This record gives sequence, C-alpha cells and structure tokens, in this order.
Amino acid sequence: MRKLDKLEIMKNKINIGDEATLNKVFTSEDVYHFANISLDNNPIHLDDEYASKTIFKARIVQGILVSGLISAVIANKLPGNGSIYLKQELNFKIPVFIGDEITAKILVTKIHQNKPIYTLSTICTNQNNEIVIDGEAIILLNRKKDI
Amino acid sequence: MRKLDKLEIMKNKINIGDEATLNKVFTSEDVYHFANISLDNNPIHLDDEYASKTIFKARIVQGILVSGLISAVIANKLPGNGSIYLKQELNFKIPVFIGDEITAKILVTKIHQNKPIYTLSTICTNQNNEIVIDGEAIILLNRKKDI
Repeated sequence: MRKLDKLEIMKNKINIGDEATLNKVFTSEDVYHFANISLDNNPIHLDDEYASKTIFKARIVQGILVSGLISAVIANKLPGNGSIYLKQELNFKIPVFIGDEITAKILVTKIHQNKPIYTLSTICTNQNNEIVIDGEAIILLNRKKDI
Repeated sequence: MRKLDKLEIMKNKINIGDEATLNKVFTSEDVYHFANISLDNNPIHLDDEYASKTIFKARIVQGILVSGLISAVIANKLPGNGSIYLKQELNFKIPVFIGDEITAKILVTKIHQNKPIYTLSTICTNQNNEIVIDGEAIILLNRKKDI
C-alpha cells in the first residue's frame, strides 16, 4: 500500500493537460558543434554553397539537434528531475534554418494507471508559429523521495 | 516517363536489405557539449555525485545525442547525400554510459513504390552487443543529378 500511496502523490503533482515550454535560437556554432559530436557531416548543415543548391536554398539545423530541445523541457521542467526516456517519436515537418527561434512544447496526454509513466505530446514550432517537429514521448519518472 | 526512369535508377542504387554502420565512443566532453547546445541540464548526465545515487549509479549519455549517430549513418552512408529526415522513432532500451562504444546500424526495410522514400530499421548497440536504442526512420532522398 505504501508504494501505491507514493505513486498517488507523484501522480497528483503531474496532471493530464499540464504543459511546459522552452525556446532557443539555433546558431551556426550549435550546428557545427553537433556535427562534431554526432559525426553527421551532411553538407546541407555545414556548407553554404552546397545548401544553396538544394530544395531548402540554405543550411538547415540537424533535426536531431532540434529534438534535443524537447529532451531539455522534459529533463528540466516536465516531468523534470528523475525523467528517464523510454520512447520518442519525431515527425520532421518543415526544416529549421540557422537563426530560427524554436519553441519546444510538452503536453501531458496520458498517465499510466499504476506506474509513474507519462505520455507527452512533443511539438516544436518556429518564430512564425509553424510546426517544425511533432511527435510523442514516453517517460518513466524515477524520482527520489527527497527531491 | 522520364521522371519514373530517374526514380528507377535511384532505386537500383539502394535495395531492401542494404545496411551501413558507424561507431563512436561517447565521451564526457561530448555530453557537456550536447548539454550546452540542447539546454538539457539533467544532472544524470552532468553530475557524478547525483548520478551515483540514481538507479543507473553513474552518469549516462543523453539518448538524443546517441541518436545523432543514427542520423550520421543516414547522412554519410545510407541513403547518404541528399537524405531528408521525415520521421524517426526511438525506443530507449538500456542506458549508454560515458565511454561506451556505440555502433549505429541502418538496414533498408522498405522502398516506396513511386517516390524516393526509404524506411530504415535503426539500431544502436554497445560494446557488449546489447541493444541500447532501436526504432525506425523514414527518409526522403532528394539527390541532385550530378551527385
């Protein structure tokens, strides 16, 4: 029973419909750093001349780097401390260009009946309010008693 | 008809069952860099003392950073140049620790009948051959004639 009580307490702290956001301007420097640490050397991210000849006409930010902003909202805000990623689905709708200001928004859509597992809608929009990424995350919350 | 011929040529270059891999050791420096550019300040990635008290007992690499290695194989090898991400599904199975050597493996599982769209199985394993991430990607190939 004690375990269930603890879960109930945790559940009460996070409710369906809760949301959180975080925004960031992605710079050329960010894109080069991510290329270095991920080994993704796609010239569409790194080479202005190459990118100018593609359908996008300019360099774009790596989709996975933009997705990092989703994990930042999850880790820093909702569910926050103790979040463990179980799943992330990402649908890349339109490209993110260097200098775009992206807002990642998390919305709690489902809470597991007897486990601290949360389903979240995860949407990234640009400064023109266009959806650049949508998708869903599933998070296990392993929060310590004293946090 | 000309367009179909072009697609046919492209399809012949990539077949169901084709695969490619890339591997990388994720370092503490990589983890700090990714925290900076993604804004993900989860102490489980950054703080040894905090991490030692969690179920993982040590700092872990951000799941999204590890996923970057998948996009690197896609962009650099298969389908390679001209790859545009439409979708990525990521199932995080077990954690990646600092110093783990991760291999990302891409396998072509489906090719769209009349568009240059490829479905890929995307699996990351560690140095013990344990699956750390599995999932699926969908890629549109926008390859220029001269490439």
